[in-house]
Amino acid sequence: MLHGGLWRQYQSVNADRTFDHVMHWLDHEGWLSNFDRVASGEPMGDRPGWVFSDSEVYKVAEAMAWEYARTGDKTLPVRLEALATRIAAAQDLDGYLNTAFGHGEQRPRWSDLAEGHELYVAGHLLQAAVAHVRTIGEGTLVRAAVRAADQLCEEFADGAREAICGHPEIEVGLVELGRALDEPRYIDMARTFVDRRGHGSLGEGNFGRAYFQDDTPVLTADVLRGHAVRALYLSAAAIDLAVDQSDTELLDAVQRQYDRTVSRRTYITGGMGSRHQDEGFGEDWELPNDRAYCETCAGIGSIMVAWRLLLATGEVRYADLIERTLYNVVAASPSDSGDAFFYANPLHQRVEGEPVDPVRANPRAESSDRAPWFEVSCCPTNLARTFASLSAYFATVDERGVQLHQYGDYVLRTPWRGGSLALSVRTDYPDDGTVVVVVEEAPETPCELRLRVPEWCEGATFRVRGAAPVDVSPGWATAVGPWSPGDRVELHLPLRPRVIEPDPRIDSVRGCLAVQHGPDVLCLEGIDLPAGWSLDDVAVDDPSSELREGMPARVSLRSRSALDAAWPYRPRVRGAAGRLIAGRATSSGEGAVSSSPGPYRETHLGPADPSGGAEDRVRVALRPYRGWGRRGRTTMRIWLPTS
Amino acid sequence: MLHGGLWRQYQSVNADRTFDHVMHWLDHEGWLSNFDRVASGEPMGDRPGWVFSDSEVYKVAEAMAWEYARTGDKTLPVRLEALATRIAAAQDLDGYLNTAFGHGEQRPRWSDLAEGHELYVAGHLLQAAVAHVRTIGEGTLVRAAVRAADQLCEEFADGAREAICGHPEIEVGLVELGRALDEPRYIDMARTFVDRRGHGSLGEGNFGRAYFQDDTPVLTADVLRGHAVRALYLSAAAIDLAVDQSDTELLDAVQRQYDRTVSRRTYITGGMGSRHQDEGFGEDWELPNDRAYCETCAGIGSIMVAWRLLLATGEVRYADLIERTLYNVVAASPSDSGDAFFYANPLHQRVEGEPVDPVRANPRAESSDRAPWFEVSCCPTNLARTFASLSAYFATVDERGVQLHQYGDYVLRTPWRGGSLALSVRTDYPDDGTVVVVVEEAPETPCELRLRVPEWCEGATFRVRGAAPVDVSPGWATAVGPWSPGDRVELHLPLRPRVIEPDPRIDSVRGCLAVQHGPDVLCLEGIDLPAGWSLDDVAVDDPSSELREGMPARVSLRSRSALDAAWPYRPRVRGAAGRLIAGRATSSGEGAVSSSPGPYRETHLGPADPSGGAEDRVRVALRPYRGWGRRGRTTMRIWLPTS
Repeated sequence: MLHGGLWRQYQSVNADRTFDHVMHWLDHEGWLSNFDRVASGEPMGDRPGWVFSDSEVYKVAEAMAWEYARTGDKTLPVRLEALATRIAAAQDLDGYLNTAFGHGEQRPRWSDLAEGHELYVAGHLLQAAVAHVRTIGEGTLVRAAVRAADQLCEEFADGAREAICGHPEIEVGLVELGRALDEPRYIDMARTFVDRRGHGSLGEGNFGRAYFQDDTPVLTADVLRGHAVRALYLSAAAIDLAVDQSDTELLDAVQRQYDRTVSRRTYITGGMGSRHQDEGFGEDWELPNDRAYCETCAGIGSIMVAWRLLLATGEVRYADLIERTLYNVVAASPSDSGDAFFYANPLHQRVEGEPVDPVRANPRAESSDRAPWFEVSCCPTNLARTFASLSAYFATVDERGVQLHQYGDYVLRTPWRGGSLALSVRTDYPDDGTVVVVVEEAPETPCELRLRVPEWCEGATFRVRGAAPVDVSPGWATAVGPWSPGDRVELHLPLRPRVIEPDPRIDSVRGCLAVQHGPDVLCLEGIDLPAGWSLDDVAVDDPSSELREGMPARVSLRSRSALDAAWPYRPRVRGAAGRLIAGRATSSGEGAVSSSPGPYRETHLGPADPSGGAEDRVRVALRPYRGWGRRGRTTMRIWLPTS
Repeated sequence: MLHGGLWRQYQSVNADRTFDHVMHWLDHEGWLSNFDRVASGEPMGDRPGWVFSDSEVYKVAEAMAWEYARTGDKTLPVRLEALATRIAAAQDLDGYLNTAFGHGEQRPRWSDLAEGHELYVAGHLLQAAVAHVRTIGEGTLVRAAVRAADQLCEEFADGAREAICGHPEIEVGLVELGRALDEPRYIDMARTFVDRRGHGSLGEGNFGRAYFQDDTPVLTADVLRGHAVRALYLSAAAIDLAVDQSDTELLDAVQRQYDRTVSRRTYITGGMGSRHQDEGFGEDWELPNDRAYCETCAGIGSIMVAWRLLLATGEVRYADLIERTLYNVVAASPSDSGDAFFYANPLHQRVEGEPVDPVRANPRAESSDRAPWFEVSCCPTNLARTFASLSAYFATVDERGVQLHQYGDYVLRTPWRGGSLALSVRTDYPDDGTVVVVVEEAPETPCELRLRVPEWCEGATFRVRGAAPVDVSPGWATAVGPWSPGDRVELHLPLRPRVIEPDPRIDSVRGCLAVQHGPDVLCLEGIDLPAGWSLDDVAVDDPSSELREGMPARVSLRSRSALDAAWPYRPRVRGAAGRLIAGRATSSGEGAVSSSPGPYRETHLGPADPSGGAEDRVRVALRPYRGWGRRGRTTMRIWLPTS
C-alpha cells in the first residue's frame, strides 16, 4: 500500500532483512527447534530460551501473514505453512500448545501462571492466526490456534480453573480471533480474563501486584501502572471488548487511564515505561531521561491502544500520538540494515557504552550500539509484525467518508456507499510538509475527506480543488465532495523547528528545552560536538530566534567550563562579580591558634567569563532522534539545558 | 564514651531496642536455627533465607562486642558466648562454616562464587571476631573465626582455588583479623583477593562485570562503579592493605576512585548508589532523587572508606563527609523506636506509599513507612554494629596531639607521650553550634589540640583559654599546649540555614536548591503542606534573605496552579501577557472546508496570576531529612524547584 518514503523504506528492510535475521536467531537460539523436539517426544528439561520464546515464533508468523497482504509475495504463504506445520506438530492431542510446560522433565501445564507466560504465548499464537485469516485465509496455523483457543477456553472457564496469566496478551488474542472467526466464546473468555484481573490472584511476585495490573480491576483503575507492555496489551483488549460489547463504562475507564498516562507518564518521544527494574511505569512525573526504559514493545503497545481509542472515539489526538510514537520510538529501534535493534529507548545516553557483540544475544541493552538479538528478544519480532502491518494505521473509512491519519505515498481504494473511492496520496513527509491527495475514483454520493492537521503544526493551509488556500489549525481539515476523478486536495504543513518546554512538574527536565521538527523530536549527539567537548557540560541559549527552516536544525551551544570540585553542592553566596564563591573567611589568630582549609575552594559555577573567547561556543546540528547512534557509538540527549 | 545528645540517643535505642528486635527476626525467619540444624546434621534443602543470611547473625554478634566496650554491660559477653556456641556448633571439622552450602541437599561448597556469598559471609564472621578480640578478648567466636580463616586461606591459596567472591567483604575481614591477631597470612590472603579482582573471573552475571568490580583491577580503576556496597567494602580493604603494606600506589588508586565518586556520584546527603536495579552507582552525574537508592549499608560502607582515608591522609574533608553521611543517611534509617528501618534513602518521595506490614518481612522497601525487616535484611544489623561502635569515629590521636572530628558529649582519655590526656567535650550539637572542650588531665609535653571546623560553617570562631575569639575557616582550628587541667577551648559554629546550589551537570536537580542547617540537609514533607497542596506543584523563591537562625527553617512556597493538560510538552510561544500559548491559528474557510481542534488547549504554565490571591503562597517548615517520615506516611523532597 505504501509506495515510497520513510515508512516504505522501513517496510522493505523489514521484509528483505529482518525476517531472515529473526529466523536465523530463532534457529540459532534453538527456539524454533523446541517445537520439533516436543513433536518428537524428547525430554525437554534442557529446553533453551525463556518460557515465552515460542511467542517470538508466533510474532514472526504474524509478520509473514501481514507481509503477504502488503506485497502479495507468493512465497510467504508457503514459508508460513511450513513454519505452521512445525508449530502444529508440537500441539498436544487436546489442543494445548507450548514448548515450555507439560512435556518430559518440564513443570506441569498452568503450574506458574504468574510468571510462566503460557497464556501470553497462546495470545500471540491467536494474533498470528488472526493475521492469517485476514490475509491468507484458512491454514494449519489457524487450525492450530483454534484448537489451542478451544482448549484454553475449556480449561479456564468459570467453574474450572478460574485464573489469569501474569502477562496480559491472551485477552487481545482471544477478542481479535473471536471477531475474525465470529466466535463469541472467545470474546466471552477474553472478557472473563479482563474481569478476573485486579483481585490479587497472582500474588505479590517480585514487584507487587501492580506489576501485572492485578492490584485494581480495569474498570476502577485511574492510570496505567506496573510493567508497561503488560498494561498496554491489557488496555488494548479491554477497548476491543468495550466496543464489541458496547460497554461505555469499560471504554471510559481505559480511556481515562490512558489519558492520564499520556499526560503524566509519557516521554516527549511518546515512549512509555520509566523504570528498568520492573520495565514499568513509575509514578506521575517520574520521567528520567538517562534511565528511561521506553521499551520498543511498549511503544508498539501504546500505538495499539491509541489506535483502538482513535477508532472508538474519533478523537484526532490519538492519531497525533500514534505519529509521535511511530517516529520517535518505533522508528528509532531498528538499524538501517534491519539486523540490530534498540530494546530500550532512553532520551539521554550519558556514555557511549560498550560495542555490542554482533554474534551473541545481548543481555542488557544499555549501549548506544544496537544489538542483533537479546536474551529476552520480544522487540525484534514485534517490530517485524508492526512494520508489515503498518499501513493499517494510515487511514480509516466511516459512513461520512475517509480520514487520513498518517502521511506517505499510498493509494487508498475502498468501496463507499455502493460506489468506489480511490485516492492517491503523495508527499515527501516528514522531509517536506506538502501532502497532495488526488481523487482517482469517486463515488456518486458526496463523501467527506478529512486530513489530520498534526498537533505540532502552526500555520497549516488547506487547498481544495484549486481554490485559494485557507488556514487550518491542528485537528481535522475537512473537505466535502461530490468528487470527480482528478480532483486535487493539498495540505501544506510548515516544518519549522519548534522549541518545546516541559510541564514544570517533570523534575528531570526542569530548565531544559527540546526541539521538534515536524513529527520528529530532535536530539544532540556527542559525535557532533567538537573535540574536547562533553554533553555533560553544554548549555543552549533560547534558540527560538535562530532556528531556521531546513534540517538539521542548528543551535548555539556553550560549554560551561565548570571547574571540577571535590564536592558538587555549594552554598549560594554571590560575590561582587556575580560569581558564586564558597564561604571562606580569612582567618587570623594568635600564635597558638591556626586554621587550615578543607577541600572547598573558590570557584564559579555560573556562565564562563564572556571574555573567555569564542572557543566556548559552537553551532551544532540537532537531528531526528530516530536516527541516533547510526553513525557510531555516541552520547546523546534530547533535552538541552538552558543557560 | 558518648554521654548525651543525638548520637547517644541512637546508641541507647540501638542497645535497648534494636538488638532484641534483630534477634527476634533472626529467630522468626529461621536464620538463627539454620546453625542448629546444620549442627544436628539435618538435611538443609528447605533452608530459609538468602544464601547470605548467616552474615546477619555475625553482624549482630559484632554489635554485641562493640556494645560491651561502650557500656561494660556484663550480660553481653554471656549472650555473645551463647550465640557463638550455636554458631560454632555448625562449623565443619575442617573449619568451613556456612549454613547455605555443603550440607545435606545443598549445593557443594564454593560452587557459586559469583552469587553464593560464602566468602562474604565469612568476612562478617571475621569482623565479628575482630570486635570480640578488641573488646572481650578470646572466646568461642574468635576460635571459630580463626578456624574458618585458616580453612579458607588454604582453600584459596595461590596454586589452589585461585578465585574470588562476587561480594567483597572477606578482604576487609581478613585484613582486620590479621591486624588484630598479628597474623600476616590473613593479610596476604586479603591482598591476594584484592589483586585477583578485576580480571573477569566471575563472569558476566546479571549486570555485567562492573557489578562486582571484576571489570578493572583496583589499581587501575578511576571511579567506584557497580553495586555500591560491594565497591565500598572492597575499597575499605584496599586502603587497609595499602597502609599496612606501605603501598602508596594502591592508596592513591582508591583515593582517586573515591574522590571522583564523591564529586560526581554522591548525593547531597552523602548517600551513594543511584540505581535500584543493581543497587549500583550510575554514571557520573546520574543522581535521580526519586529513585535514589542510597542504601543504608552503602552509607555505612562510605563511612568505612572515608574513615580509612582520613586516617591514611589526615585530610579533614573525609571527616566532613563522615559527618554528612552519618547525619543524612545513617541517622535517617532507623525509626525512633529502633524497630523499623529504611533500606533505601531517596531524596524525593513522590507518593506516600503503602503502610508497611509490621509483622512481615518487607520485599521492596519503597514506602515512606520504615519496615521492621526485609527479605534481604543487611541494613538493620549493619546499623546495629555501626551505632555500637560509633564513638570510634569521633576523635583520633597522633604524635602531634588529638584531633576531634565529630561533636557530642564525651570524655576522651588517652595516654600521650608517657603522660595522660583527658578531655571533656560538651555540646548540644547539632541543635547548638558551641563546642566546649575542658582539659581534665594534661600531659607535660605540649600537645596539639585540633577541632574540625565543618566545611559547611561560615563565621566560626575559636577561643582558647579565655583569650579573645578568633575567626577560623573550615578545616582545622588548632591550639597548642602546654595544657593544665581546667583549661578551656571553645569552638562556636554558627548554625544559620544555608541555601545550596548543585553543580549544573546534575540533571536531576537543575533549577532547584536545597537548604542545610549545620550538618543537616533539610527536606520538605508533604505532611507540612496545607490541604489541597501537592509537592508536585510547589516552587520556592530564593530564600537566602528570609532564612533566619533557629529550626525549623521556613521558606515561602508558591503553588504553580498549573492547569492539567492532555500533553505535558508545549511549544514555546509567548503571548502578549507573557503567557505561554499553544500554537493555534484561527481557521476560516469556504463552506467545503472546516477545521476542528485537537486536544491542545490554551493554557499557561508560568507562575500563577499574582492577582490569584494569597492562597497561592504559604510559609512552610523545612526539617532535617533524618527526621522524615516519622510523623506518618508522607511525600517528601530535599531539592526545591525555584520559581
